[in-house]
Amino acid sequence: MILARVVGTVVSSHKAPKIEGIRFLLLEKIDPVTMQGKNDFVVAMDSVGAGTGEIVFYVSGSSARFTDTTQGKPADSTIIAIVDNIEKEGRFTYRKDN
Amino acid sequence: MILARVVGTVVSSHKAPKIEGIRFLLLEKIDPVTMQGKNDFVVAMDSVGAGTGEIVFYVSGSSARFTDTTQGKPADSTIIAIVDNIEKEGRFTYRKDN
Amino acid sequence: MILARVVGTVVSSHKAPKIEGIRFLLLEKIDPVTMQGKNDFVVAMDSVGAGTGEIVFYVSGSSARFTDTTQGKPADSTIIAIVDNIEKEGRFTYRKDN
Amino acid sequence: MILARVVGTVVSSHKAPKIEGIRFLLLEKIDPVTMQGKNDFVVAMDSVGAGTGEIVFYVSGSSARFTDTTQGKPADSTIIAIVDNIEKEGRFTYRKDN
Amino acid sequence: MILARVVGTVVSSHKAPKIEGIRFLLLEKIDPVTMQGKNDFVVAMDSVGAGTGEIVFYVSGSSARFTDTTQGKPADSTIIAIVDNIEKEGRFTYRKDN
Repeated sequence: MILARVVGTVVSSHKAPKIEGIRFLLLEKIDPVTMQGKNDFVVAMDSVGAGTGEIVFYVSGSSARFTDTTQGKPADSTIIAIVDNIEKEGRFTYRKDN
Repeated sequence: MILARVVGTVVSSHKAPKIEGIRFLLLEKIDPVTMQGKNDFVVAMDSVGAGTGEIVFYVSGSSARFTDTTQGKPADSTIIAIVDNIEKEGRFTYRKDN
Repeated sequence: MILARVVGTVVSSHKAPKIEGIRFLLLEKIDPVTMQGKNDFVVAMDSVGAGTGEIVFYVSGSSARFTDTTQGKPADSTIIAIVDNIEKEGRFTYRKDN
Repeated sequence: MILARVVGTVVSSHKAPKIEGIRFLLLEKIDPVTMQGKNDFVVAMDSVGAGTGEIVFYVSGSSARFTDTTQGKPADSTIIAIVDNIEKEGRFTYRKDN
Repeated sequence: MILARVVGTVVSSHKAPKIEGIRFLLLEKIDPVTMQGKNDFVVAMDSVGAGTGEIVFYVSGSSARFTDTTQGKPADSTIIAIVDNIEKEGRFTYRKDN
């Protein structure tokens, strides 16, 4: 799974019937050490109610269909977790403000 | 899913029987912030009737077979949405002209 | 799917039993605007009888098994079309000589 | 499969129900000759009880669901082995301290 | 499929039960024109008895499970052929010594 920041939304009124009602979030992949964006973007379906600014990880490939939200749908990237913290070699590189 | 601009078409008269009658569109991946093309191209099957110049997103991998158009077909990239707008941190980077 | 030029063949006498009798072609990915090779190569199974010099597109991933030639076989790249022409924004970047 | 070093953990309290109870490890891909990190990170599910500092390899794609830990789950990267040693052309580039 | 040279082995005593008894080979991807290594490595399961120094190609993704050796196993890269020769535009870039 890949770490990313939710940076926006993508809206489509003309789409495959199977994806009606799904939210599409714009994600920017991040470096989990510096927490900087990598200027590399992906559109993901959201299975966890993530919002702009949150750090998430998403699953790619066929496993993107293995959530209740995306089952049977043409998904290749699905957010499956909102991240609370990232720890690297004993130090937090990220802690979510609560 | 990946954002791209439809930039053309690819025509083949000699192809696998299962893909007879399918439209093949040439897509150029875009940077969703600047909306510039990345000079990185993919051939996609079209499940939504997209046309040249439109911004779309396509699904990759096995999920490219999960549309009515592409079910059971050797597809690895299928357009599943024509994009109306892209919003990044409260600002539109793209709005479709209607 | 990805556009490529057939540039050669790969021969193996010692291989997995399931791929006996399959032709393996060496493909060089191309830039579909300049039609130049990208010096990036892949070995593909051939489902359409492509020959050296032809422009083709191939399908990757599990869908590479979705042709009559490759069904049930350990394929991750299968040529599914010989390209007649590529059109980008109203101009042909490639037209096959007939 | 790809060689990587376990460098940390990723914690999420808000995630897809199917992945409750799974450990998420932060991996840094390595060059198996120099054993240096490549500054390229992935979040993996752990099927073998790996710990920080260990060299592992993980499996990607649908096969990431083919362990007892990850079966039926939205996994695209699963650690399947802790590495004892890596040998390249007759020399060890890595030997685990026991 | 991708061309690579077998450059070594990876040994693990602590691994997922399903991959007990499988050989893990270290592959370096090659440029099939110059036959030089690309300093890009992958760990592959071996279905054909390949040895160090041999040129092979391996299959990625779900198709890596489509050999007798790897069926049902968490494999994403499996060697399916030992290469005898590579021909590019009428010239051999590689011929195996017999």
